[in-house]
Amino acid sequence: MSYDFNPHFAKLFENETPKELYTPITYALSTGGKRLRPQLALTACNMFGGKLEDAMPVISAIEVFHNFTLLHDDIMDNADVRRNRPTVHKQFDESAAILSGDAMMIEAYRQLEAMPHDLWTELFPLFTSTALDICRGQQMDKNFETASSVSLNEYIEMIRLKTAVLLACALKLGAIAARADKRDADLLYEVGINIGLAFQIQDDYLDLYGDPLTFGKAIGGDVACQKKTFLYILTQELADTRAIEMLNLYYAKTDIILTDRLSLIRELYNNNNIPQRYEQYLAEYLRKAEESLAAVNTTDEAKKPLRDLIAKLANRKK
Amino acid sequence: MSYDFNPHFAKLFENETPKELYTPITYALSTGGKRLRPQLALTACNMFGGKLEDAMPVISAIEVFHNFTLLHDDIMDNADVRRNRPTVHKQFDESAAILSGDAMMIEAYRQLEAMPHDLWTELFPLFTSTALDICRGQQMDKNFETASSVSLNEYIEMIRLKTAVLLACALKLGAIAARADKRDADLLYEVGINIGLAFQIQDDYLDLYGDPLTFGKAIGGDVACQKKTFLYILTQELADTRAIEMLNLYYAKTDIILTDRLSLIRELYNNNNIPQRYEQYLAEYLRKAEESLAAVNTTDEAKKPLRDLIAKLANRKK
Repeated sequence: MSYDFNPHFAKLFENETPKELYTPITYALSTGGKRLRPQLALTACNMFGGKLEDAMPVISAIEVFHNFTLLHDDIMDNADVRRNRPTVHKQFDESAAILSGDAMMIEAYRQLEAMPHDLWTELFPLFTSTALDICRGQQMDKNFETASSVSLNEYIEMIRLKTAVLLACALKLGAIAARADKRDADLLYEVGINIGLAFQIQDDYLDLYGDPLTFGKAIGGDVACQKKTFLYILTQELADTRAIEMLNLYYAKTDIILTDRLSLIRELYNNNNIPQRYEQYLAEYLRKAEESLAAVNTTDEAKKPLRDLIAKLANRKK
Repeated sequence: MSYDFNPHFAKLFENETPKELYTPITYALSTGGKRLRPQLALTACNMFGGKLEDAMPVISAIEVFHNFTLLHDDIMDNADVRRNRPTVHKQFDESAAILSGDAMMIEAYRQLEAMPHDLWTELFPLFTSTALDICRGQQMDKNFETASSVSLNEYIEMIRLKTAVLLACALKLGAIAARADKRDADLLYEVGINIGLAFQIQDDYLDLYGDPLTFGKAIGGDVACQKKTFLYILTQELADTRAIEMLNLYYAKTDIILTDRLSLIRELYNNNNIPQRYEQYLAEYLRKAEESLAAVNTTDEAKKPLRDLIAKLANRKK
C-alpha cells in the first residue's frame, strides 16, 4: 500500500557539490524511517485525484525539512544514535551537521519552487509558518527541561508545534498539490493536527509501556533523561500529592538501576489510572481526526487510504 | 546619505514568542554593523524610482538571513566576539545560536512573503539559490582550512559564493522591488558580484595592512588562525619557491609572537610586490562594477548614490 520513497531520497542530492556539504545530507536522508510525512502528503494528494508527480516537490520539501530538524535537534540533545546509526554530528562533525542542516532547510524551499507558480501563494506561507512553529515548539521543549512544572495545556501546545503541525502541513500540502478545495485542505490540516497529537502521546506511552522486542529502541529513554512526558504531566495534574512526590522521587533517583525505576513508575501510573487516561486522550484525538476526515467532500473510497493509515498509526507498537 | 536601519531591526521581532527563541535574534540584529546589504538594496530600489517601503521586506529578509549565517559561522569558527560583543553562542548558549539561527533563516522567507505576489517567482528562486551558494561557499572555506593548497581560482570562487552573491542578491532584490527591467536587475547583480569580490579581498588586505586605530578589530587575525588569505594565495601563485617556503614558515611559527610574524610576512609580501598585485585586482573588480553600472538604463543622477557607495567602499579603512 505505501510507496517506497527511499530510492528517491537516496538519489535526490547525489550530484550536488561540494561533496562535503551534500554527503551528510544524503547520509541523513538514507536512513529510511517511516517516511510518515511523505506518505501523508501522497495519500492526501491521491484523495483528490492528484498523482505522485503532482505532490513530489512538496513531498521532497517536507521530508528534507523534517530531516534538517533532526540534524540540529540531535546536536542540541547530544544524541549519538538515530535509527541505529551514528547521528550526523557523530558520523561527520558538528560543523557538518550545522551547515549541511542549513543547506537542507534551504533545499526544502528549492524543492517547493518546483511546484506550479499559481500555487506558490498557498504553499509558501503554509510551509514557512509551519517551519517557524516547529522552531517555537523545539524552544518550548528546551524550556520545559528546566521548568519546575509544566501544565498539560503547555505540554499539548508544545507537541502541537513540535510534531503535529508538520503532519498537518504534509496533508494540506498534498491536498493543495491536487488542487483540492480550500475547505477540504483545511479539514485535512485538522486531521493532521490530531494525528500528530495522538502520535506524540503514543511515543511517550510506548517509551514506558512498549514491548522491548517490537519498540525498536531502548525502553525508558525518557525516564533516563528525566523528560516530562505526557504520562508524567498527567500524573502531576491528576494524582494526589503523595503520588506526585513519589513520581518525582523515582524520576530523580538515578542511583537505582533504570529497569527498577521503570517498574516503580509503571506501578505508580497503573495505581493512578494514568494508562486509562492516556487511552482516553488517544481515542479523543483519533475521534477528532476521523470527524474532520468525515467532513471532507469526497467519497469514502477516496478517503480509505488515509483511514487505513490512521488505523495503522493507532495500533502501532513502535 | 545612508538610511539608519538600526531602529527597524531592533524592533522587528520584539513581540514574537517564545522569548527564549527571539531574544538571541534581537540581540544579533541589534549590533549595528555597516548594514551594507540593506543599504545596497535600498540604493538599487531608489535607482529605479522605488521607495523604502517597496524594498523593506527584501531588506529585512536579506539582513536577517545574513545575520543568521553569522550566528552559525561563529559556532563553526569558535568565535567569541563579534562587533565588540560576545557572539550569540557565548552570550546565550550553543543550542540557542543553532535554534534561533534556524528561526532567522525561516523568518527571512517570511519577510520575503510580504512582497507583492506577482514578484514572488522572481524573488524566491533568487533568494534560495543565493542562500544555497552561501552554504556552498562556507563549505569551501571550511575545506580550505585543511587543504594542502588552494588555487587563486578556487579562492575567488569561494569568496564569490560566500560573500559576493549576497551583495549581488541585495542589489537585484532592490531592483526587482522597484520593478526594474530584468536586464537592469541582472546588471546590478554583476555590480554586486564585483563589489563583493573587491570587498572580500580588501578584508584580507586590511587584516594585515589596516591601521589598528581605524580597523576596528585586531590586526593579523587571519595570520593568527593560519587562514589562507588572498595575499597568501597570491604569493603561492606568484612568488618563487624560496619566498613560498618562508611564508609557510612564518605562518606556522606560532612560537614567535604575532606582531613579529606580521612584520616578517608584510616584508615578504612587499618584497614580492603582493600589495601592488592586490591593488590591481581591486581596481579591476571596481572597474567591472563600474562597467556594469554604466550599462544600466537610467540617468547618471539616479546612479550617483550607488556610485558614491562603491567609492566609499573602495576607500574603506575598516
